[in-house]
Amino acid sequence: MSRNSVESLVVGLAACDMLAVARLISWAENRDRRIAEVLRRVYPRTGNAYRVGITGPPGAGKSTLIARLALKLRERDEKVAVVAVDPTSPFTGGALLGDRFRMTDLSEDPGIFVRSMASRGSRGGLAAATEEAMDLLDAAGYRTILVETVGVGQVELDIAQATDSVAVLLVPESGDGIQAMKAGLMEIGDVFVVNKADREGADRLVTEIESVLDLRPYRDGWRPEVLRTVSHKGEGVPELVEALARHRAHLEETGKLAERRRRTLRLRLLGEARQALLERIRRTEGVELEDLLNRVAAREITPHDAARDMVDLLGTRTRDETNGGGAD
Amino acid sequence: MSRNSVESLVVGLAACDMLAVARLISWAENRDRRIAEVLRRVYPRTGNAYRVGITGPPGAGKSTLIARLALKLRERDEKVAVVAVDPTSPFTGGALLGDRFRMTDLSEDPGIFVRSMASRGSRGGLAAATEEAMDLLDAAGYRTILVETVGVGQVELDIAQATDSVAVLLVPESGDGIQAMKAGLMEIGDVFVVNKADREGADRLVTEIESVLDLRPYRDGWRPEVLRTVSHKGEGVPELVEALARHRAHLEETGKLAERRRRTLRLRLLGEARQALLERIRRTEGVELEDLLNRVAAREITPHDAARDMVDLLGTRTRDETNGGGAD
Repeated sequence: MSRNSVESLVVGLAACDMLAVARLISWAENRDRRIAEVLRRVYPRTGNAYRVGITGPPGAGKSTLIARLALKLRERDEKVAVVAVDPTSPFTGGALLGDRFRMTDLSEDPGIFVRSMASRGSRGGLAAATEEAMDLLDAAGYRTILVETVGVGQVELDIAQATDSVAVLLVPESGDGIQAMKAGLMEIGDVFVVNKADREGADRLVTEIESVLDLRPYRDGWRPEVLRTVSHKGEGVPELVEALARHRAHLEETGKLAERRRRTLRLRLLGEARQALLERIRRTEGVELEDLLNRVAAREITPHDAARDMVDLLGTRTRDETNGGGAD
Repeated sequence: MSRNSVESLVVGLAACDMLAVARLISWAENRDRRIAEVLRRVYPRTGNAYRVGITGPPGAGKSTLIARLALKLRERDEKVAVVAVDPTSPFTGGALLGDRFRMTDLSEDPGIFVRSMASRGSRGGLAAATEEAMDLLDAAGYRTILVETVGVGQVELDIAQATDSVAVLLVPESGDGIQAMKAGLMEIGDVFVVNKADREGADRLVTEIESVLDLRPYRDGWRPEVLRTVSHKGEGVPELVEALARHRAHLEETGKLAERRRRTLRLRLLGEARQALLERIRRTEGVELEDLLNRVAAREITPHDAARDMVDLLGTRTRDETNGGGAD
């Protein structure tokens, strides 16, 4: 039954059945154990999607811009997916009145898949779930995946960076430039977008960004581009598509794309291993832990050695699980 | 040589030689590998010191109060140790002009040991080092250990709570009561001290604290006491000593002391195991990780399975270390 379910969903994913994709992303989100088997089946088909992170402070107009961007990319007749990790995003339910574009505008097009990710449990878990969602969408045949995160907090920045290109959105408002520098946004952008560029202060913000970029070493040999958009009118969106395409071409021509993806993978692997270990520690809070506690309380062993014993138990258990209990 | 060093320092610790104690705390602070062996030797002699956490917002006058408290406790002719984890503390070098008491006032008395703890590396490491410092001081024969932390941030609150009694210091200043509730200070205090009680607003703050305490279930069956002090004049310090003694007597008579220490030990064990695992993950960033990365990049295995393999490698390595390489 569970086997069939995995089977039919994997088949559905390969056919880009939206319900199957949605169900599997929910498994990733809920840390369902079956997702490991699903990924084993579909992972060989990944690596074809171009992944773009879009981040910036709340209120910068990320969702509206992403909606416009998705529609523009669809003109090339390639399937586009949007993953919104931003809790303030209209995609994820945070209503912003006055926004022209909403999820419904996008969902009329069957070639655009929109999905929000919620944190069930730890934020480390959210990062893992988002990367798995990208893998699933990649395997389902989406050629561009746009990931929206709010540019506040390390986990959000990490998720935005687990992509091939990062667009940072800023608006010409009180001290946005300075905020961006504080939040570490200046370090991660490949393209900077000054949105709401019809407002006062847009020129100054562009100048500020340019002068900060002049002071920094370029990442992957790329000098970030700075663009202007008025997202609710669609102004500057074609130019953004072109800038992202130029960045992608640069990465591919210089061999930096593979390097960058390897860097991302390394962080992902360390993050996943860390998560797996923490989950096992939590599960160890059973008989063995009580036993160790008794021995430490009786001062038979030190807390340090007891911690080491706990790690040993985790090691043993890991191998037993892997080898079907036949280890040693 | 290294062996001798451990040997002579352990002997020095048992004789309460201050230089030996200081050196060993530095080992704990620097996560020196030799500390494991030292603790193995001295851990059976711990459990005799009463550990008091003293915490509160910066500027509440913690250091001055602790200095007064240490001198008062010394009147009973028992050795007292002060461990300051607070980066704003005069003990740790953060100068507060106008303070009457400084480290020098205490260091004239050979029965008072003062030590600051600095974070070398992670804050999880700082918690472990502080607990080991308490063990070392306990084994050296100090009968009361006062641990000062600034009551901001989870690690600091956790360190303060890894004790037998917690005193929370507040001052009658703008919204201190509300800040305390936000910061989680109200949950952890066994004794609340309104310091600078000669200032305006002291009565209101006492009332605020009392009314919050009335709403909460008591921890360990103890209704926290609320006291007033003017620490730079020494007012209220004898009453604080008495209140701490009453709390201790309550814990001992009800059997709650053992329970509480076991609770602390459980958290410590989980924290130490977590640290040990993270350190091992970091060390795994060698050959095996590159190998796994290659296989994931080639899509031979999924990131999920690679993470599991990493955990397996950690398990293997752990057992090899423990069994001298003869496992399996």
